[in-house]
Amino acid sequence: MTQFDNVSVIKKANVYFDGRCISHAVIFADGTRKTLGVILPSTLLFTTQAAEIMEITAGHCRVRQAGSETWTDYKGGSSFDVPANSSFDIETIETLDYVCHFA
Amino acid sequence: MTQFDNVSVIKKANVYFDGRCISHAVIFADGTRKTLGVILPSTLLFTTQAAEIMEITAGHCRVRQAGSETWTDYKGGSSFDVPANSSFDIETIETLDYVCHFA
Repeated sequence: MTQFDNVSVIKKANVYFDGRCISHAVIFADGTRKTLGVILPSTLLFTTQAAEIMEITAGHCRVRQAGSETWTDYKGGSSFDVPANSSFDIETIETLDYVCHFA
Repeated sequence: MTQFDNVSVIKKANVYFDGRCISHAVIFADGTRKTLGVILPSTLLFTTQAAEIMEITAGHCRVRQAGSETWTDYKGGSSFDVPANSSFDIETIETLDYVCHFA
């Protein structure tokens, strides 16, 4: 699925880390909210409030979850879960397109 | 209007100028296509194929159209037209949220 259909999109973007991460909120017919974004090549530390699923739709990154010493590779077509009130390091090797789903 | 309703959004972003400009295509129920994007602080030269209307929804920039020596300021709530097969210089002073409408 290359697009979301029958959604609302908030015009104002969320700009994080001096623009290395830019996302737009997308709201679905059932009220579900996701964010659709891009992460440029960088190494960043993200923190979560709600639990989330990061779906990588294109690009390449390595991720280290809080409390772990292991970096795991993710490419387009893969995803990873992040617990609530946690964090992860993400090294983006090739610009990411992602969808963040809130659990 | 802070959001687009009942639209489709292409998941893959358009990334220009090393990420200084990032946009997503939005498709409306009548088939109209617009792009919703962000331009980070920078000075860039954009070229057009189709004529377009650049609607600035937030931020601050100065624009010089091809063949002009005049820079014009635009802030959130304003817009400018660009002819087909033309170009414009844009100095983004404060990160822009924009909608590009194709004429």
